[in-house]
Amino acid sequence: MATGKINVSVDNIFPLIKKFLYSDHEIFLRELISNATDATLKLKHLTSIGEAKVEYGNPQIEVRIDKDNKTLHILDQGLGMSEEEVKKYINEVAFSGAEEFLDKYKDAGKEAGIIGHFGLGFYSAFMVADKVEIITKTFRDEPAVHWSCEGSPEFDMQSAERSERGTEIILHIAEDSTEFLEENRIQELLSKYNKFMPIPIKFGTRTETLPKPEGAAEEDPAPTEEVDNIINNPNPAWTKAPADLEEDDYKGFYRELYPMQFEEPLFNIHLNVDYPFNLTGILYFPKLTQDLNTQKDRIQLYQNQVFVTDNVEGIVPEFLTMLRGVIDSPDIPLNVSRSYLQADGNVKKISSYISRKVADKLQSLFKNNREDFEQKWNDIKVVIEYGMLTEEKFFDKAEGFALYPAVDGAYYTYQELVEKTKDAQTDKDGKQIFLYASDPVAQHSYIEAAKAKGYEVLHLDSPIVPHLIQKLESSKENISFTRVDGDHIDNLIKKEDTAISKLDEKQQESLKTEVEEVVKEMGFVVQLEPMDSSASPFIITEPEFMRRMKEMQQTGGGGMFGMGNMPDMYNLVVNTNHELIGEILETKTAKKRIRLIRQSLDLARLSKGLLKGEELTQFISRSYEMIK
Amino acid sequence: MATGKINVSVDNIFPLIKKFLYSDHEIFLRELISNATDATLKLKHLTSIGEAKVEYGNPQIEVRIDKDNKTLHILDQGLGMSEEEVKKYINEVAFSGAEEFLDKYKDAGKEAGIIGHFGLGFYSAFMVADKVEIITKTFRDEPAVHWSCEGSPEFDMQSAERSERGTEIILHIAEDSTEFLEENRIQELLSKYNKFMPIPIKFGTRTETLPKPEGAAEEDPAPTEEVDNIINNPNPAWTKAPADLEEDDYKGFYRELYPMQFEEPLFNIHLNVDYPFNLTGILYFPKLTQDLNTQKDRIQLYQNQVFVTDNVEGIVPEFLTMLRGVIDSPDIPLNVSRSYLQADGNVKKISSYISRKVADKLQSLFKNNREDFEQKWNDIKVVIEYGMLTEEKFFDKAEGFALYPAVDGAYYTYQELVEKTKDAQTDKDGKQIFLYASDPVAQHSYIEAAKAKGYEVLHLDSPIVPHLIQKLESSKENISFTRVDGDHIDNLIKKEDTAISKLDEKQQESLKTEVEEVVKEMGFVVQLEPMDSSASPFIITEPEFMRRMKEMQQTGGGGMFGMGNMPDMYNLVVNTNHELIGEILETKTAKKRIRLIRQSLDLARLSKGLLKGEELTQFISRSYEMIK
Repeated sequence: MATGKINVSVDNIFPLIKKFLYSDHEIFLRELISNATDATLKLKHLTSIGEAKVEYGNPQIEVRIDKDNKTLHILDQGLGMSEEEVKKYINEVAFSGAEEFLDKYKDAGKEAGIIGHFGLGFYSAFMVADKVEIITKTFRDEPAVHWSCEGSPEFDMQSAERSERGTEIILHIAEDSTEFLEENRIQELLSKYNKFMPIPIKFGTRTETLPKPEGAAEEDPAPTEEVDNIINNPNPAWTKAPADLEEDDYKGFYRELYPMQFEEPLFNIHLNVDYPFNLTGILYFPKLTQDLNTQKDRIQLYQNQVFVTDNVEGIVPEFLTMLRGVIDSPDIPLNVSRSYLQADGNVKKISSYISRKVADKLQSLFKNNREDFEQKWNDIKVVIEYGMLTEEKFFDKAEGFALYPAVDGAYYTYQELVEKTKDAQTDKDGKQIFLYASDPVAQHSYIEAAKAKGYEVLHLDSPIVPHLIQKLESSKENISFTRVDGDHIDNLIKKEDTAISKLDEKQQESLKTEVEEVVKEMGFVVQLEPMDSSASPFIITEPEFMRRMKEMQQTGGGGMFGMGNMPDMYNLVVNTNHELIGEILETKTAKKRIRLIRQSLDLARLSKGLLKGEELTQFISRSYEMIK
Repeated sequence: MATGKINVSVDNIFPLIKKFLYSDHEIFLRELISNATDATLKLKHLTSIGEAKVEYGNPQIEVRIDKDNKTLHILDQGLGMSEEEVKKYINEVAFSGAEEFLDKYKDAGKEAGIIGHFGLGFYSAFMVADKVEIITKTFRDEPAVHWSCEGSPEFDMQSAERSERGTEIILHIAEDSTEFLEENRIQELLSKYNKFMPIPIKFGTRTETLPKPEGAAEEDPAPTEEVDNIINNPNPAWTKAPADLEEDDYKGFYRELYPMQFEEPLFNIHLNVDYPFNLTGILYFPKLTQDLNTQKDRIQLYQNQVFVTDNVEGIVPEFLTMLRGVIDSPDIPLNVSRSYLQADGNVKKISSYISRKVADKLQSLFKNNREDFEQKWNDIKVVIEYGMLTEEKFFDKAEGFALYPAVDGAYYTYQELVEKTKDAQTDKDGKQIFLYASDPVAQHSYIEAAKAKGYEVLHLDSPIVPHLIQKLESSKENISFTRVDGDHIDNLIKKEDTAISKLDEKQQESLKTEVEEVVKEMGFVVQLEPMDSSASPFIITEPEFMRRMKEMQQTGGGGMFGMGNMPDMYNLVVNTNHELIGEILETKTAKKRIRLIRQSLDLARLSKGLLKGEELTQFISRSYEMIK
């Protein structure tokens, strides 16, 4: 026995390519147009360094359908191939021409923008064609070549007549792939994959109306002209320098990207880095609506202006996947799984670069036009709050621009909030308490009670707020958040002064017994409190801790196990200093006392949104009776 | 020039494999264990047909980590390879051994359950190892072979000492892949991919406590024993015949699949078909909770007991992707894109087979134990209703088991509903009107009014109900759905009798003017109606058409463009025959009249859930005043 060389059996390479190389057959067109682009850009580079002594001109790529012959043609005016080159680049599979070229012209490669990733791309043609022809003429002084192959490893190579430089690929479309002879289908693929490729791509012609010649009569038809139908924009906004772009250019590009989006984006972030990785792009903060297109119009990933995917999971930080726009980077590995992506060092760096750029942009927007930023806050807060929760670095950066809106329209940064509420909202233990409402309409009476005390009430309504305030409480010292209906107002922020109850102990006990009897089935915990006589007689409160744990578990993660399904817990606070309570105690018959308690209780439940269904219907008809 | 043969350059096949073949490096273990399983099952087949004259025995596969030498070992007791076979199956890349075997033993292949899909699997070892060794001894009377290769095409082949049949693969794990020397990581991979593979897989040992020998003293420790730690269940439930399984077996298998699920499934569907495609599996209807695991615990796709993916999009009809369970089919193409899957004829057939089986199961559950089915309805309705909307065939089948629950707990099929309401709910034009509530608590007073007329009110609360009733209205004749608060009760189902108003025209006009003045800012359309004197004096209604269009657009699809953001539209119905209305008209001062109207209006708004925020707080404090 001995050493030897593993032999790759060529009879099996075609099925292998068909089966494994590209799962999506439609990819073939992207590959062939990438090759054509590549050949054109290479020629551009060679002419620019004087190595090719020909006129570069204004080359374009053409895609043409020939329905009669069932062929699809891709033509370019690039550098073409000599017989030797066909042998090398076509007849030897898995020999990536672009790779060798890049080796040779290393530094030039990047700026010339060569699409070097699709080394095996040509063979993807066999996914849809049962015969493929190449007619090619090199820019050098050598004869043209005609190569053809019917999908077996045998090929045929002849000299050809062609005199202009460049390459034509002819695909004899297979029976099972005739969709690729339909104009609509090809149009669809071109706008999906090639909309922003760097060489103009012609697909058919269109009729353009010209201005009428001077002196033409009213009834004369305007003259028309057949012009090339160019399907791409070879110079999309993200390839330009930010300094060369106006606000309107960014908005225009957004419409180019998402023609079905009618809402303008809120603002954009131009990405541009070339070390330690190469990445350009423009991200947009959209106005997030309930619109269905929200999910469809996602960030698109390009490599050297070739569309790759709109699934950027793992590349863009999770909290930014709600954004829109374009990322173009040759440094992101293709065709790999999420778990692999997440482990890739370059991708990690890209992800944190994007996160940092977004934070910087938010910071500068806040600094330069705070009023405008505040107006946009409601549309962008979910992204920012989610980022604060999930990325420690972003959390730190967000301290400078994350806003805490108050119910009456003011917006505070965290530091401003601390300043603003320091005096009034520090409790007897020196802890600063921030009050918030999740729904100012539903919690209106509680907010009014807090405002009457001179407290500031925030309006925090994102579903992740319970998690966010939990995080703030654990990263900041001596502060705490409580929802306005978490307790009665004197308990929300406990001060030194102890209030005096108008009722003696015996009165309190008898009142409590009777109230407890009424609320027995409702599960409220009764709590007598000597509050201000102007406060409501009955108040229902929902303790912060339990509610928050429950909400945290319902919105996923955090909270305590099993609490998501716990019943809600309420306290019934009875203000022993309210006039009505005195009246209840003075009422002689138990029946009347209970009716008074029940009616007051119904009003307290209404205020907390707890009077519903049959009980509400009963309350209403009782009240109609009382009007009459 | 001439013809020639395309040459695949072997120097490039390894990078190609690394780059394209499998995006997920961890896959290598699945591939190697699949090969080991394959080799074992082949031997089983050869012994069963008498072609191999050896004892099959109880072979197992072993996975072993050698941390000191940084190697990972996979050992099997299968048929092994001779020198010739190593040359053929290993040294010739892309030559699928399983394929040739299947050709030879065509019909036997299926029942032997050979994993023939992973022809190139062995080379995936090079994704994580920089040197791979094979030590193998065929079951035939030939010497063992020791093959090794360091990732270049050069290999080394020697004879080896091994005397037992079978194969050992030794992976010298590369520096960047040392995670695969961690026990936890391998354990994780084994339970992800190999949990149900057909040959027992040993990974280490575990200590088992034995029963104490008779007469042992209390304080004696129980004896223990080291036993093989078998990580898989080689005979999972779905491979067995339904007749051999009890309800408890299905539940047990559910726990095996989803150890973190504490809720039992509602019921299961055993899939079993072998023509025109081969598919087995068990699907479970889970109790859909708000639990986070809902999304994680998805249907798993296997091929011959090898886990492939838990993304079954395109394979399972969309409305069934909420189910859980297992599908095992060798006929589903792997590594292909969704769009390709959707076009594949086999996959289409599989999808509609699953859909049909689910419908049949639901029909039989309904027929065999209707009471139980009704109890489960609330947990399964979303799936069924979504299926009715999206699949025409399922819609037709669902007529037999889709239920329409009434607010008071009755459940009707569509036909029963038609029968039940024919007499009372056919309007003067002969159209049958089905009344429904989306929220019986919020719509309580409206439901009561409908019940008082003898109408049946359905409880339809899924978010897709607007779409579903739209579909029902267009596929059935002369029926229509209206929510109970769509109009006042006499208009919901218009009968011939015309009611007489207690008010004359002048009274009506003056009342209308005054009411319109009060509701001006609220945008209600005022509508005077001579209703029963026992009906409410003021009723707020929300016309069906506009509301439904709005809801349809909000839940996606259907509805009219731009209506999702329209304001809600309400009518204020004033019952001119109610006592209170007479009293209002008799009240002398305008101020008092308006206060009466305002208070009645507030009660009507409360009843429709429209009195909120500041207005509710005002209403409550006004009402406290009135109690005192």
